[in-house]
Amino acid sequence: MPDPASKPAALIQTLKHRLLPTVGMVAIAIVIWLVPAPGGVDQKAWHLLAIFVATIVGLIVKPFPMGAVAMLGITATALTGTLTITEALSGFGNRVIWLIVIAFFISRGFIKTGLGARIAYLFMAAVGKKSLGLAYSMVATDLVLAPAIPSNTARAGGVIFPVLRSVARAYGSEPDDGTARRIGAFLVKTSFQATIVTSAMFLTAMAANPLAVELAGGLGVEITWGIWALAASVPGLASLTVVPWLVYRLYPPEIKETPAAAQMAREKLAAMGKMKPGEMTMLGTFILLLILWIFGGNLGIHPTTAALAGLSILLISGALTWNDIITEKGAWNTLVWFAALVMMASYLNTLGLIPWFGDTVGAAVGGIGWISAFLVLSLVYFYSHYFFASNTAHVSSMYAAFLAVAIAVGTPPVLAALVLAFFSNLFSSMTHYGTGPAPVLFGSGYVEMGVWWKLGGLISVVNIIIWMGLGGLWWKVLGLW
Amino acid sequence: MPDPASKPAALIQTLKHRLLPTVGMVAIAIVIWLVPAPGGVDQKAWHLLAIFVATIVGLIVKPFPMGAVAMLGITATALTGTLTITEALSGFGNRVIWLIVIAFFISRGFIKTGLGARIAYLFMAAVGKKSLGLAYSMVATDLVLAPAIPSNTARAGGVIFPVLRSVARAYGSEPDDGTARRIGAFLVKTSFQATIVTSAMFLTAMAANPLAVELAGGLGVEITWGIWALAASVPGLASLTVVPWLVYRLYPPEIKETPAAAQMAREKLAAMGKMKPGEMTMLGTFILLLILWIFGGNLGIHPTTAALAGLSILLISGALTWNDIITEKGAWNTLVWFAALVMMASYLNTLGLIPWFGDTVGAAVGGIGWISAFLVLSLVYFYSHYFFASNTAHVSSMYAAFLAVAIAVGTPPVLAALVLAFFSNLFSSMTHYGTGPAPVLFGSGYVEMGVWWKLGGLISVVNIIIWMGLGGLWWKVLGLW
Repeated sequence: MPDPASKPAALIQTLKHRLLPTVGMVAIAIVIWLVPAPGGVDQKAWHLLAIFVATIVGLIVKPFPMGAVAMLGITATALTGTLTITEALSGFGNRVIWLIVIAFFISRGFIKTGLGARIAYLFMAAVGKKSLGLAYSMVATDLVLAPAIPSNTARAGGVIFPVLRSVARAYGSEPDDGTARRIGAFLVKTSFQATIVTSAMFLTAMAANPLAVELAGGLGVEITWGIWALAASVPGLASLTVVPWLVYRLYPPEIKETPAAAQMAREKLAAMGKMKPGEMTMLGTFILLLILWIFGGNLGIHPTTAALAGLSILLISGALTWNDIITEKGAWNTLVWFAALVMMASYLNTLGLIPWFGDTVGAAVGGIGWISAFLVLSLVYFYSHYFFASNTAHVSSMYAAFLAVAIAVGTPPVLAALVLAFFSNLFSSMTHYGTGPAPVLFGSGYVEMGVWWKLGGLISVVNIIIWMGLGGLWWKVLGLW
Repeated sequence: MPDPASKPAALIQTLKHRLLPTVGMVAIAIVIWLVPAPGGVDQKAWHLLAIFVATIVGLIVKPFPMGAVAMLGITATALTGTLTITEALSGFGNRVIWLIVIAFFISRGFIKTGLGARIAYLFMAAVGKKSLGLAYSMVATDLVLAPAIPSNTARAGGVIFPVLRSVARAYGSEPDDGTARRIGAFLVKTSFQATIVTSAMFLTAMAANPLAVELAGGLGVEITWGIWALAASVPGLASLTVVPWLVYRLYPPEIKETPAAAQMAREKLAAMGKMKPGEMTMLGTFILLLILWIFGGNLGIHPTTAALAGLSILLISGALTWNDIITEKGAWNTLVWFAALVMMASYLNTLGLIPWFGDTVGAAVGGIGWISAFLVLSLVYFYSHYFFASNTAHVSSMYAAFLAVAIAVGTPPVLAALVLAFFSNLFSSMTHYGTGPAPVLFGSGYVEMGVWWKLGGLISVVNIIIWMGLGGLWWKVLGLW
C-alpha cells in the first residue's frame, strides 16, 4: 500500500476524489446543455437544468462538501449568463431558508445552556427504569426538541447520543467487545428510527423540510407550519409508539431492567441543580416560539419573524453570544447549499420546466386514477432513497418533479405535498448513509450493517403502513382529500 | 474595587454595558416612532427611520457586537410590521454584499497560502535597506493586496503587522521599554495611514465601500469598480507617496539604515523556497480577478460573478477548503450587518425619506453655489468621524443623506458620490478608534495617543488637500465635473 502522505499517492487521491468527479460534473452539464431542449421547453430553463443536474450529481458524488458544490452551481448559473447575478443570489434572501438558519442558531442554545440534556435526564428519571422505558425517554426527548432543532444530526448526535452512550457504558455495553447487545445496540437503533419520525413531524425538524415547502410553494401549494404539524401528529405519534416496541421485540436488549439509568439521571439532575437563568430563557423562548409558530399565522407573524424574535431574546439576554452565531458553521453551510438549491429549483419552476415535466408525465400515466398513481409515485420516491446519501440531495432532485406529476394526475395538492414531504424523512430509515444521524449512530459501532439494513427495511414498511393507513384516515378527517 | 467575577458586579456590568444601552436604543426608536412624521414623509418611512436611528445608535454605543445589533434591527422591522419579512431579509440577496463576503473568503487565501507574506518580503528585500524604504515596502504590499482584501483590519493587522512587528523586534524596538521610537513607532504610524489611503482606492478595499456604492445606486448614481479605481488612482498614489515621507520628517525613526531588514526578508524568502502550487493558484486567481473587475463590464461579467469565479478556482484547486469558508467568521459577520444596513437604507430611499431630506436641506442651503456647498458638506462629513468608531456606522448613517443634499444643491452626482466615498475612508486617519486597523496598530503600544491624534489630524488635512486639489484636477480631466 503506498504511503498516503507521499506526493504521488496524494495526487492520485486528489485526482480520484476531486478532479475526476468535477470533470464528470462539468461533462454532464455540457452534454445536457448541448442536447436540444424538447419542444415546449425554454432554452434558458434547459441550460439551468444542465447546471442543476450537475449540481445534484455533485451533491451525491461529493467531490467537495455540499456547500462548495452549491457555490460552484451558483457560479455556473451566473457565469454562463443563464441567470443574472441578482437572480443567482436570490436564494440568500429567502425567508424559509432564514427560518432554518435562525433555528440552527437557536438550537445551539439547547446544547449550550444544558437544557437539552436536562430534558433527556428528566424523561429518563421518570420512565427509565426498564430498557424499553429508557428508549421511550430518548424518543420523548427527541420529540420535544424536534420543533426547534432542524439539524437531526445535532438532535440525535449532539443531545441524545452522549446520554445514550453514557447509559450504555454504565451497563458495561461497549460496541467492540461482544457486549453491544446488552443495551447499547438497542438504544442506538431505536434513537435512530425515532429521530427519523420526529424529523417528519415538524416543518422545522429537519433542514430539508422547508426546501420541500418552498418547492411546493413554487407549484402553488401552500404548507404552513401548523398544517404540517397537525397532519403529521397522529401517524407520527403512532410510529413513535410502535417502532421502539417493534425494535424491542425483534432486536431485544439483554438487559431489560435499568434501575441504574433512572438513578444516574436523578444524580445528573441533582448535580445540575436548579434551572439556571440561561436555561430559563431558553425554555421561555422555546415555548414562545412554539406558540408563535402554531398561532402566529392569525397574528400575521411569519414563522421566520417569530424565529428572529426568539433569537433576539437569546442575544439580548446573553443566553447566546454573537460569537456563538458567527461560529455556528452548520448554519452557514446550510445557508449556502439551501440558497443554491432553492434558487435553481424556483427558476426551473418559473421558467416552466417543472410544470412541463409534470404535465408530460401526468398525461402519460393519467388513465389509472390518482390514488393508484400517487401510491406508485410515492413508493418510487420512497425507495429511491437507497441511492441517496442525503435527504437534501433527494428532495432537491426529485420532490418538485414528483409533486408536479402527482398534481397533474389529480392528487389533491396539499395532500400530495405533505405525503411526499413526510416521506422525505421516513425514507431515511433504511440505510446507514441516508441521513445525517446515520453515520453518527451507525458509526458508533453498536449495530452490525446487516441488522441495520434488515430492521431498517422492515421499519420502512411499518412506517408506510402507519402513515398511509392511519395517516390517510386522519387526513380524511382533516379534509385533505 | 469589587471582584468583577462576583455575581452582583457581573450583573451591574451587564446592566451597564448591555441592558441600559439596549433600553436606550428601544427608547430612541419609540420616541421617533411616536413623533408625527413631517409633512411629505410616508408613515412607514418614518417608522423605519425610528428603527434605523436606533440601530445606528446601537452600532455606535455597541451594547452588542455589530452583527447582533444588525440582527435586532432586522427583527424590529419585521416584528413591527414596518416591512414584510421578505423585505426585511432582502439585503441577504444583494449582489454587492456578496461581492464583499466572497472577497473575504478569497482574502483568506492570501494569508493561508503565504502569498501575502511573500509579497511583503519581496518588497522589503528590494527597497528595505533604509527605514523609509522599509515603510514604502509595507505601503506597496498594502496597495497590492488592497483590491482583494476588503477587510483593512485583515490587511494591516493580519498581513503587514506581523512582518512589521518582527522587523521592529529584530532592531530591538519594543513598545514598552523606551525603544519604541527606534523604528517600531514610525512603521506602525506609516502602515496605519497607508492602509487608510489604500482603503479609499478600490471599491473592494474596505468593507463599507460597497455600502456607499449601494446607497449611491439607490439615488440613481452608478459607480463601477473601474471608475472608482480610476478616479482614486492619482490622488491615492500621491497620498501614498507624500504621507510616509511626511511621517518620516515629523516623527522620524532613530534608525535610518536597515540593512538587516532587507537581509531578513531575503532569508525568509529563501526559507519559503519556490512558490507552492497553492500560492501560484492564489496569484493567478488574483490577477484574473483584477482583470475581470477592470474589464468585466465590457464582457457583461458583474464583479460579484467574477468573485464567484475566483472563489470557485480556489475551491476546486484546493487552495481553500470549504471549511475555510464556513469558519471565516468575519465574512458571516459582515454579511449580517451589511444586509441589515443595506436593507434599511434602501427602503428609507424607496419609501422616499432620503430624497425628501435631500430636497428639504438642499432647498435651504441652495443659494450658495454647489462648489462651496459641497465643500462644506464634505468637510462636515469628514470631521464628524471624530464621533464614530466604525466606518460602517458612519457611512450607513450619513452617506445617503449627505449625497442626497449634495445632488440637490447641484453637485455632479458621480463626483459627489465618489468624493464622499473616498472621504468615507480618509476620515479614519485621525483617531485611534475610527476604523478596524486602528485598535490593532494603536493597540500595539508603539505610538502614544497624543502623537497619534496630532499626526492624524495633520495628515487628514494633507489628504484633503491632495484629494480635493490634485484629485479635483484629475476628475476634471476625467470629465466628472
